[in-house]
This record gives sequence, C-alpha cells and structure tokens, in this order.
Amino acid sequence: MTAPKKVVLAYSGGLDTSIILKWLQTEYGCEVVTFTADLGQGEELEPARKKAEILGIKPENIFIEDLREEFVRDFVFPMFRANAEYEGLYLLGTSIARPLISKRLVEIAAQTGADAVSHGATGKGNDQVRFELAAYALNPEIAVIAPWREWDLGSRTKLIEFAEKHQIPIAKDKRGEAPFSVDANLLHTSSEGKVLEDPAEMAPDYVFQRTVAPEDAPNEPEFIEVGFERGDAVSINGEAMSPATILTKLNELGGKHGIGRLDFVENRFVGMKSRGIYETPGGTVLLEAHRGIEQITLDAGAGHLKDSLMPRYAELIYNGFWFSPEREMLQAAIDKSQENVTGTVRLKLYKGSATCVGRWSENHSLYSEAHVTFEEDMGAYDQTDAQGFIQLNALRLKLLAARDRRTKG
Amino acid sequence: MTAPKKVVLAYSGGLDTSIILKWLQTEYGCEVVTFTADLGQGEELEPARKKAEILGIKPENIFIEDLREEFVRDFVFPMFRANAEYEGLYLLGTSIARPLISKRLVEIAAQTGADAVSHGATGKGNDQVRFELAAYALNPEIAVIAPWREWDLGSRTKLIEFAEKHQIPIAKDKRGEAPFSVDANLLHTSSEGKVLEDPAEMAPDYVFQRTVAPEDAPNEPEFIEVGFERGDAVSINGEAMSPATILTKLNELGGKHGIGRLDFVENRFVGMKSRGIYETPGGTVLLEAHRGIEQITLDAGAGHLKDSLMPRYAELIYNGFWFSPEREMLQAAIDKSQENVTGTVRLKLYKGSATCVGRWSENHSLYSEAHVTFEEDMGAYDQTDAQGFIQLNALRLKLLAARDRRTKG
Amino acid sequence: MTAPKKVVLAYSGGLDTSIILKWLQTEYGCEVVTFTADLGQGEELEPARKKAEILGIKPENIFIEDLREEFVRDFVFPMFRANAEYEGLYLLGTSIARPLISKRLVEIAAQTGADAVSHGATGKGNDQVRFELAAYALNPEIAVIAPWREWDLGSRTKLIEFAEKHQIPIAKDKRGEAPFSVDANLLHTSSEGKVLEDPAEMAPDYVFQRTVAPEDAPNEPEFIEVGFERGDAVSINGEAMSPATILTKLNELGGKHGIGRLDFVENRFVGMKSRGIYETPGGTVLLEAHRGIEQITLDAGAGHLKDSLMPRYAELIYNGFWFSPEREMLQAAIDKSQENVTGTVRLKLYKGSATCVGRWSENHSLYSEAHVTFEEDMGAYDQTDAQGFIQLNALRLKLLAARDRRTKG
Amino acid sequence: MTAPKKVVLAYSGGLDTSIILKWLQTEYGCEVVTFTADLGQGEELEPARKKAEILGIKPENIFIEDLREEFVRDFVFPMFRANAEYEGLYLLGTSIARPLISKRLVEIAAQTGADAVSHGATGKGNDQVRFELAAYALNPEIAVIAPWREWDLGSRTKLIEFAEKHQIPIAKDKRGEAPFSVDANLLHTSSEGKVLEDPAEMAPDYVFQRTVAPEDAPNEPEFIEVGFERGDAVSINGEAMSPATILTKLNELGGKHGIGRLDFVENRFVGMKSRGIYETPGGTVLLEAHRGIEQITLDAGAGHLKDSLMPRYAELIYNGFWFSPEREMLQAAIDKSQENVTGTVRLKLYKGSATCVGRWSENHSLYSEAHVTFEEDMGAYDQTDAQGFIQLNALRLKLLAARDRRTKG
Repeated sequence: MTAPKKVVLAYSGGLDTSIILKWLQTEYGCEVVTFTADLGQGEELEPARKKAEILGIKPENIFIEDLREEFVRDFVFPMFRANAEYEGLYLLGTSIARPLISKRLVEIAAQTGADAVSHGATGKGNDQVRFELAAYALNPEIAVIAPWREWDLGSRTKLIEFAEKHQIPIAKDKRGEAPFSVDANLLHTSSEGKVLEDPAEMAPDYVFQRTVAPEDAPNEPEFIEVGFERGDAVSINGEAMSPATILTKLNELGGKHGIGRLDFVENRFVGMKSRGIYETPGGTVLLEAHRGIEQITLDAGAGHLKDSLMPRYAELIYNGFWFSPEREMLQAAIDKSQENVTGTVRLKLYKGSATCVGRWSENHSLYSEAHVTFEEDMGAYDQTDAQGFIQLNALRLKLLAARDRRTKG
Repeated sequence: MTAPKKVVLAYSGGLDTSIILKWLQTEYGCEVVTFTADLGQGEELEPARKKAEILGIKPENIFIEDLREEFVRDFVFPMFRANAEYEGLYLLGTSIARPLISKRLVEIAAQTGADAVSHGATGKGNDQVRFELAAYALNPEIAVIAPWREWDLGSRTKLIEFAEKHQIPIAKDKRGEAPFSVDANLLHTSSEGKVLEDPAEMAPDYVFQRTVAPEDAPNEPEFIEVGFERGDAVSINGEAMSPATILTKLNELGGKHGIGRLDFVENRFVGMKSRGIYETPGGTVLLEAHRGIEQITLDAGAGHLKDSLMPRYAELIYNGFWFSPEREMLQAAIDKSQENVTGTVRLKLYKGSATCVGRWSENHSLYSEAHVTFEEDMGAYDQTDAQGFIQLNALRLKLLAARDRRTKG
Repeated sequence: MTAPKKVVLAYSGGLDTSIILKWLQTEYGCEVVTFTADLGQGEELEPARKKAEILGIKPENIFIEDLREEFVRDFVFPMFRANAEYEGLYLLGTSIARPLISKRLVEIAAQTGADAVSHGATGKGNDQVRFELAAYALNPEIAVIAPWREWDLGSRTKLIEFAEKHQIPIAKDKRGEAPFSVDANLLHTSSEGKVLEDPAEMAPDYVFQRTVAPEDAPNEPEFIEVGFERGDAVSINGEAMSPATILTKLNELGGKHGIGRLDFVENRFVGMKSRGIYETPGGTVLLEAHRGIEQITLDAGAGHLKDSLMPRYAELIYNGFWFSPEREMLQAAIDKSQENVTGTVRLKLYKGSATCVGRWSENHSLYSEAHVTFEEDMGAYDQTDAQGFIQLNALRLKLLAARDRRTKG
Repeated sequence: MTAPKKVVLAYSGGLDTSIILKWLQTEYGCEVVTFTADLGQGEELEPARKKAEILGIKPENIFIEDLREEFVRDFVFPMFRANAEYEGLYLLGTSIARPLISKRLVEIAAQTGADAVSHGATGKGNDQVRFELAAYALNPEIAVIAPWREWDLGSRTKLIEFAEKHQIPIAKDKRGEAPFSVDANLLHTSSEGKVLEDPAEMAPDYVFQRTVAPEDAPNEPEFIEVGFERGDAVSINGEAMSPATILTKLNELGGKHGIGRLDFVENRFVGMKSRGIYETPGGTVLLEAHRGIEQITLDAGAGHLKDSLMPRYAELIYNGFWFSPEREMLQAAIDKSQENVTGTVRLKLYKGSATCVGRWSENHSLYSEAHVTFEEDMGAYDQTDAQGFIQLNALRLKLLAARDRRTKG
C-alpha cells in the first residue's frame, strides 16, 4: 500500500479516536477528514467538532451527521423483518451499525477526494472486519487504515504517553483503564472485556447502562400495542411514528421494564469466543412484536422458509457481509415474505419480559376461526380429508418399515 | 380396511376415551386392549384400570405404564440437544410425546395379537398425524382407527347421549363443555380452543395450570446450577438426578417463578393456523441452560450448522416424523455435535424469566481468555493476521464492486 | 361438494380426455368448456376443436391457445435461472407445465362463469396435485373434478366400452393399451408405466421420441454459442431469438446429438417411487450453458447460496407449489442473483453430451486473470495475505484440537 | 514463530519440492524429513528416495508410503456417499487428497519429533489452506512452513538459479516452464494455469492425460455392473474388489470411454475465480452409479435432506475443513442415510457419458411395482386418499388466495 494522502476517520471525539487522528497525521503525514455520526449512541456530537478543530482539522473536513432515521429505516428494520438472532440470542446491535458508518466513510472519501478511510477497531474483534468488508464492497480502490493493527501503542500507558506528547486533551476519567469496553447505538449497548472476561462470573450491576434491573422495574405490567405495515413497525399505541422515533420509544419502554438484557458468549468471525453483555430493550420488544404479527399474517410455507434462512442471514450480518450479493438475495426473499405482514400486536411488558398477548389484522390475517374452531365448523373443514393426507404422508414410511422387516428379519 | 378384531386403545380413563372404548366395542364388535401411560401428566393412573374393568376390559388387556424416564431420556432430551423451537417459539411439548405413545401401542399390539390401534385425536389437529405416522412407521400392516374422523358423535350432546345409553359413568364436571381443551405431560401443558379461539384476546388467568403468573412469583430471584454431560442435563445444584427427576425439578422451579408461558398462533401441519397457550416451565429453563453450556463448549462451525438444521428438525417433530430417516439423520448430526457439551450453567430465575448468568467447564470449554483478552495476550493472537483474513474475505467483494463500476458506469 | 354446473376441462382431443368430457356431461349433467393448449407438445390443435364440437361443445366454449412463449418466458426460464434439478437429475419438464395450464383453466372459468375445472390426471401421480394446488392457489372457491379418482372406469376395457356406448370416436391404435404413457411439451417428453415399470430393465429403444440414440448421432461434434442476459438465454450463435424459439432450436440441436436422455427412478410427492424415461434435449443444453455463464458472472457467495436453495426450489416445483409464497420468495432471491448473468457460452455437442468449453462476458465477468495468473501478477494479489487468512480460519480448529488433547489425554 | 528445528516436508521428488527441501535446510538450518505418498498419482515413488538421499536426507528421515487404500476407503468413498459436487460440477479430486497428506505429515512429525511441516502449495490457491487447516486441526502446536509465501524465488529463472547453485539435479524438460500445472491422484487429474488461463478458450487436446477424447473412444458402448453395500462400491461385474482396486478399474473403464472431463471455472476459497480442466473418469462413473442405487434404496425424506446438505458439505471439503466438527456432523447424517444403500447398478459407458440404465436390490429396494403400476394394483394404493392429501396441502394456499382477494380487491 502506498501511503495515503487523505484519510476519512470514523471519529467519536473520544480519547482513542483522537489519538488515532493525531497518529494518522504524524505517521502518514496525511490530511485527516473526521466523520462523526449520531446513530443514537446518546452522546452530544458538537464537542467532537471542537476537539477535531483543536487537533487541527479544517472546518470543511469535519463531517457531523444525524443518521438515526437512515440507520433504523434501512438497516435495523430490514434486519428485523428476518427475526435475525445470531447464535440463537444476539440481536446484532453492533453488527448492523458498521455497514452504515462505512458507507458514509466511503461516500465522504469520494466527496473530499480522500484515498483512504480509518477506524478505531482492534485487530481481535469483528468490527474491523465489518468496517473493512463494507468499505471494500463499496469502493474496491479505497485503502483502509486500522491503526490498532499497525502501531505499537498497545498498552494504556503508551496511549497516554502518546496523547500527552501530542497535547491531546485527556479527560480525567480516561487516564485509568475503563473496567470494560462499551459500544452503543440506537439499537443496543454492548459491554465486553476486562471485568467481563470470565464467562463464569455474573456481570456486575454497574455494567448495565440503559435498562433497569428487572428487580427494579415497575411492579405493574404495562400493555402496549405496536402496529405493523409490510413487516415494519409503524405505530405505538395507535400513534404513527418514524422508524427512529419508534425504536427510541420502544427503548424507553423496554429499558423501564428491564427488558433486553443478554449475557452471552459468542463466536467471533476471527475464530475466538468472547463474552458480551448486551442491552437491546427496544429491539427485544420489537422482535416479540414482529413475531406476533407474523403468527397471523405469514403463511406456514413462507414462515418455515424464513426460519431456515435466518441463521445464515444473521451470520452474514455478524460477519460483516451486509453489502454482499448473498445478503441481498436473502433480503429479497425476506422482503417478499413481508408484503402482508400488516396488523397490530398487543404486548405485556413486565420485569424483564416482553410477551405477545394478542394480535389482529383487519384484512391480512390468515387465521381462520371458521376452520380451527372446536365448534361446528359448517363444512369449512372436512375431517375425512385427514385420512388421505395421513395415508399418503405415511406411504413412504410404510415402505421403509416393510423393508426393515425384510432386512432385519 | 377390513374390520379390526382386536384394537389397542390409547386410554386415559376420561370420558372421551371411555366413549371411544365403548364405540369400538359396539361399532366393530372387536376386543379392546387399553393402554394408559404416565408421561407426567399429573393424573393418577389406577382409576383408569378400574374404569376399563367397568367397561368390560379383561385384566390381561389392561396396560398401565410409567413411561416418564423413557419419555425424557429418549425423546425430550435428544430434542433439547437441538434447541428445537417450532416457528421460533414453541417447545414441542405435545409433539414429542406422541411417538412414544404410538410406539407402545404398536408394541402392545404385537404382544397381544391386536391388528389395530386407536386414539382419541380429532380430524382437525396435528396429533392424529403424529399418532398415525409413528404407528405406520413402526408397523406397516397395522390399522389405525380414529373414531373422531369416523363417527357421527360430533357434538357434546351426542357424546353425552352415547355415554348415558352405554352406562359410561360421567363425572359431574364433564357434562358441560370444558371452556378449553388441555393436553399435559412432563414437558408441558397446552390449552386451546373455545375461549382461546380469538388470537386478539388475552388468555384468561384460569387457563394456566402449572405456572404462577409472573406477578405472583417470588420477589427475589433464585439462582440454580444445571450440570450437563454430552448435551444432556445430569444434575441440579450439584446433585445428580435421572432425566425425569431433573425435568420434574425444573418444572417446580420454573412453575414457581412463572417461567415458560407462551401465547402462540402456530401453523398446523393440516394447513390451518391455531392458537395455543403453552406452559413449559422446566423446558424453558432447560433450553436456556443448554444454550448457555453450548456457548462455551460448542464450536462455531458446529453451532452454526446446528442452528441452520434446527428449523427443519423442529418441523419434522411437529409434523409427526419422529420415526423417519431424515429425523434420524439430523439426530445423528446433532448428537455428534454434543460429545463435548459438558459443564455447568448458572441461571437466574425471576418473574417469568430464566437467564444464563454464568457457565464453566473444567475440560470442555473452548473459551480462551488468553486469546480474547483486552490485556496483553503474550502472543496468543497475532493481530496482523486479521489483515490477510480481511483482504481475502474482501477479494470477491472488490471484484464485484469493480464490475459494478463497469456495468453501472 | 355440490354438483358443478359448468366445468372447464383441460382437453387434449385424445381418447381419454374425450371420455372425461362425455363423463362430465353424463355424470354431472354440466356444461363443459374445453381448453386445449399448445405448450409445444408437437401435436396439431385444430383437430381438438373438431372433436369437441362432435362431442357437443358449443363453439364459444372451445378455447384453443398457443402458450409456448408464455410457457418458456414465465415458467421454464425462471426455473432454469435456479439450475433446478429434482433429486439431482430431473429437469422438471412435466412439473413446470402444470401450473400454467391450471392458471388458464382458472382464468377461463372466471371468464365463462364456470364453477369447476377438471383434468385427466390419475390418483396415483403428481400431476393431480400440481393441477389442483395451482387451481386452489389462484381461486380458493373453484371446485376441481378429477374423474380418475371418482369413476369406475379403471380398466382399458371399461373405458373402451364407455367410449363406444357414447359414440366417442376411437382411433384404431388406441383400442389396445399403449405400452407406456407419454407426456410432452416444449421442454421435454416423459414416458412411464407398463414396459418401463421394472427399473432393472433397460428402456427399449422405441420409447425415445425426440432424441436420437447417441450411437446414431453425428460423428462430428457441433459447436454452438448461447448468449445470456440477466440469466436468460437470448441468442444462439449470435442470433437473437424469443424464449420459445430458443428452446425449440436447442431441442433440435440437442435431439440431433442424442442429448438429454434420462432413465430415472424418482420419489413422487404422493409417497411412492416411480420410474420415468425423460428426454429434455434443449433443456439439458440450456442447463449446461447457464452453468457456464454463471461460472464467470456469479459471485461465490451468491452461487453457494443459490446451490443450497436449489433442492428446496426444485422440490417445490415438483410437488406442485409453483404458486406458493415460499417459491416466490426463493424466486426473488434467485432473480436477484441473476442481474449480472450476462455473456456468452461456447458448447460442444457430441454423442449425448453438451459440454461447456468456453465462456466470456465483455462487462460482467468476475474472472480476473490478473489475480489468478501463474505469471507475475503486478501486485494484484499479495500472497502473504493468505497467512493471516489461514491462521484465523484455523483458530477455532486449534482450540478444538487443544481441547481434544485435554479430554482425550 | 520461532525457527523450526525439524520439518516434515510433503516431498514428491520433483524439482519444486527438491528446491523447497534445500531451501528449508539453508534458510532455517533445520533437519528435513521427507514424506512421499502414493495416492495413485501414477508415478514411481522410489526415485524420490534416491533424490532425497542425494539432497542429504538421512534414511530414517525418508518416509515413502502407499496410501491408496486408505485414501479411497476413508476419504473418497465417504465423500461419494454424499454425491458431493462443488458448485454443481466439480468432484473435488484435489480437495479430498489434502487432508490425508496433512494427517500423515502431522503423524510423522509426532513420530520423528519434528516441530513443523511444510508443503509446496502457492499462496494463491486452495491447497495451502487445505494442508494447513488439516494440520492445525490435528496438532494445534505444529508450525507450517509454506515456502512459496515466504521466499523470493517467485520466478522460474530464480528457481532454476537456486537449483543450480545448490546442485539440485534438473531434468531437461523441467528447465522451461510447463505450459500448465498438474495435480493427480487416484481420483482425478487437474490442470490449470498458463495456457488454460483464458476461460473463453477451449482447452487444447494435449492437456488431457488420463481420458481419451470422446471422439477417440470406442464406437460401441460398454455395459458394466457396479455393486454397492451401505453406500460404497464393492464390486464390478460381480467381482468383489477393494476400494482402491475398484476406483482403479473404474478409471480404466472411464478413461477408455472418454468419461469425466470437465472444463470449469470455480470460486477459490481465497476469493478469486480460476479455471481448471479436470479428468475424473472413475469418479464420474461412480457418482452416476451411486445415484442410481440411491434411486431405489434411499427414502424421499432422507434423499431430499441429503440433497440440501450436499452443497455445504462439498464447500467444506473444497475449503479445507475435512477435519472440522461440522463436516463430521454432516458425515454422521450422510452415513446414517446409507445403511440400506445396497444393490447393483447397470451402466452404459459410451463416448464421454456414463448413464445408469438399470438398478436392482434383492432386499433393500423401496421401489414398489405393486403401488406404482398402471395395472390393477389390488388395493395397494387407494386413489381416493389423494383427495384428502391435496385438500389439506391446499388449505393454506386457499386461505392465502382468499386474503389476496380481500387485500387486492
């Protein structure tokens, strides 16, 4: 790789990415463009502008954007149409944010004439893979600089030394090492590392940041209604809202009731197991709601196919292949299935659980009380049909059993 | 079908199967053998003997058996090795019991020289399919009599008339129609029909039979440890127990904490949607525990393959294909994966939720703190490897992006 | 089912469907509408009009249509995008024609005010299922009459008697039983039954109808070029042609070179195995060509996903679920993958085989000689990347091996 | 990596691996152990011993082994039970040999106290991945040296210079560059590179090494019978043979009739497409035969599951994951399915094609002429069963169609 001349950096304004910013300037002598996105992580963005300016970034090279609606509409919601869970449980809150950040990095690179992008992910994790696969999929010529894989600032001490040497302001509470590492966006907060590294040990209370403990949640359940159109949530309690507003509101509701905590050991794409504590309050409510509305609006054939495709779909997102032909193929199939996933779900929120307790749809329900009823069904269903249905499903099993008698005597 | 001479009936001792017993005698003039199994449904079996005798069954034709250990060891546990959930949520409590009953029906038919078996499932449901596919798979010559598909006793009134006409004792509370229909065994209780037929309406409290409402569960969480060997639970809080004892104990614990309630609309194999209320207290705890121990003992490749096979496996059990070559193939694959699923899980039970909060295994863990640590890893992992890993994973994506530029200009 | 008043019959003009026509009139006293389609079976259609008239069908109730273009464009080509092979070998020539016939039957029923449709498939085969599932999927109210499942004309003798009794003209060669049964359309000819029923016995030469024996094919190979756009064949040897014209031309070429014969024992949806002799000359050439162009234009991720979906897709078509949500979901995924499957394939046709011997695409190829070359690649590919790629792919395998050492000593 | 002290080298005796041998000695100053295996590549092995001795290898460090039976019995045959084809067409002849070589390398390392193994695969291909993943999966501590990724002998000129400098004998015909690269074993010969790098150009005749051109094959077809037991070929024309003997014999037969040539562009695991010419004469015959015997002995449920698993299984082998938990899980499933795949197949070999023309099995056939016959079936099959079978399969489709009417008007 030839040395980059201009680099777009995913910049949070925090100490680590400030060090990266300076390191890029000193190591490569290159111009740095900073990109700071609001994905709902719950931090002010304007301080990042000031810090970037202090570090010598030209105003026209500072990009600060609110991507919350795009994030939920074009990434989170399509993923939830699939009921995606990685390894049975993880709602992919970090994974789904990375491709959007990379997309903007690459677009800003094109806009500013930069030849490289850079990120603050380490060489051990999944995020480096997600950032970089997305970037390369969008621009095959782009260079990606991953300082954590390159530099020799591998310890906290060296980082602080570097910061001090280069007059990077260090907040008091950042001098010591954080007891664990955090990533957050509108979908979730993840915590990992340090005090969480022993998967046998229960995560300490102070790790949790956006959900109350179920024990501290209200003693009375709360009931809400979530409306869906074509597989996406469109309203809460009858009030229409934008995608990001809905997720924000569900986060409040879920967080208040202690919903969406997950203590999880997962398999990273790079080959090791890691332990994470995830909080996905709104997403957990949304998944339960989406499953509820699918129960009455999705056909069995479509639903079973979807279920069988989901693990692969979730793995692709986890591994960083959002921008890949196979993810797009699966999305086409999933989106096709959602055309009639329209209706309303009633949920009970209580002490850590969101449970669907009712679902209805004026025009899109496939549930037929006429067929299923224990009462007289007026001929909707002819029970004698079951005889032939069973006989023909059994035919091959009978032929197998007859063979077993021949071969096993 | 020629008229059967001797029929083995799955007999509960209740009103419905007593009517069937009598109907078989009068309609076909055949000898009836009764088979009553304890699968953990929580009812005394000896009254069934007395009732059978009253209805004229010879003592040598009355079979009463405790199948709880076989049920859990050979059916429930193998299924839980797969983390099987039908349509994302249902733990298959009814489905998994049917093949065992059919197996014993067919075996008793062979032993007593009977040429047919009979069951009390209706022509609308899945259970008829499960009973009959299992029976035919085990004996291709057996006849199956499904009175509900044959007779004209389709209403409660006619059933009561028939019972009275044939001096079948009718318990007072059985004269009227039950407000919903129930099936129970050691794994779960299911309720459906009548008052539950509108999926928009919340299930009334009186439907629930073996779990307290989360609101009524203890205000303090309870922590338990479940030990696993080769994928099966073998101990609770360090105490070794038999399979059925473990499930019984987990049912107590789960039921006490309001765990395992499910309000669900599912797709029946016969083509319609139906709504069921399921209570699977012990099974819900067991699933969470099994997932927890797999997190540290199951390899990513094995785990992802298992996840992708699970929906098909669950569908096969739901549809009644337990005794089929494809279920056995999947079981062989799943069992192969469980050889090292050995260790202990710590769970928190609280107000409707079972959550894994710790897991460990002395010899079988694949979790490597040496690799994953945020601390200095002493060379366990070389971060520069990630560069090549990403580059080669990205290569095809770059080639795709380059093509897009050519074709889209 | 209440008796139908007006029935649209899939009518070939042959003896069997003429008997059905008359039987519908006499058995149900209903008005009959005939529908005769040219799907490329190679028979004149106008004689069917005359026969229908002789049997008393009103001119306005006789529908004769050339559906060849629609058949290839909307059914055959979409299926070939998937490289669909049932049970590894069968190109689904009969299966893919049935939904189109049903679609027109249902549409003509709507147009003529008929309340039922009827077909000449027996109760043992797959075609009854395909006709009827398609019909019900398009009109849930339609009735389907399957005379072979209803009447008592189960033997040749009875059929002939019925025909004679009702003055149905009988061609001389139809008095005796045909030595096997044939179905044909533009995609294939299938033969089964009678002399073919022993799967150990080689099919006699006289069974084959549209391919020469490879031994009788030309002694010189013929080379052709097939052009593709977005997954569909659009030209032969540089000449643009319509879908049906292309398949017709490929049939000529394949048939001349003895290509596309298949002796096959398959699993019918209704539970039994059957043996068929299939001739799919053009389809066999087309499949080889399509695979050839995909080799350079389809990405690995897309291709492998497609391969894994194909068996399910083929099974759905075989079983009659063309008009189902899950087939449409899979089609959406498959079609998405074909957007860049554009280019040209060179094939060698010789003595029973079609083999791809070259493929190219001006803009859509993903093949990069720069990357793959054994020569100096000017930095297109950095071989040291493979080191990290292998190390991270190996990491979990090493952790597994280390565990094995611990547990197995 | 610390420098290795003793290395086991996969040594063919040819120029390239002789250069590697010397390079290991000079670069690392380490002791070299050579391992030369007969996998049926058709070369004498003893010359390799002499060459190794000339290059200074101690006699006790020279390992020469005939692995043909193990290769076919434990690798080729298990793979053929799956009907494995990579990307629809490639029979994995190179992929399946690598894990066996690695297994012996690692075993010999343990036996001789070596701390590393080495191979002659380049950094662009799949073989490096296969060798190394297998080695690491069997010994997590082993080091692997891949000279082609390390040294600077990247051109033919430099290699020859190195050889001359170190007195490595150079056969005359090895001075110039070969026009393409070859790999061979008992299953296949593959050729790639150089003159084959343009996938639009037909491969020249001189590339083919073990099959005659179909045009040059006998003008008369040859019929053979292959016997199977539990999924493996055990006899040809009634004569029982060992696995390697069977494959050798099928190679002769296939090669003589021009069978098994494949011109293929595939997706390498490392991310690029490459073009190969494969000759797999015996394997192609074996695949056709195995499919033929499965047609009558394998149940539909088992067969369809197998078909759906096959692409993943083939991908795993291609990518080098033979020794992985997921390959072993799939193998367990596949092997389970083969328990009754016993019987005999009749094949026609002619001008490039092997086609099954008959198959039978005394006890293991599931084909029931009684059920499928067009003749009177004496009640084996009740055609009226099809009515109910279709109705219940159609039920959900009708409910969907009814919804479409509601929503689409």
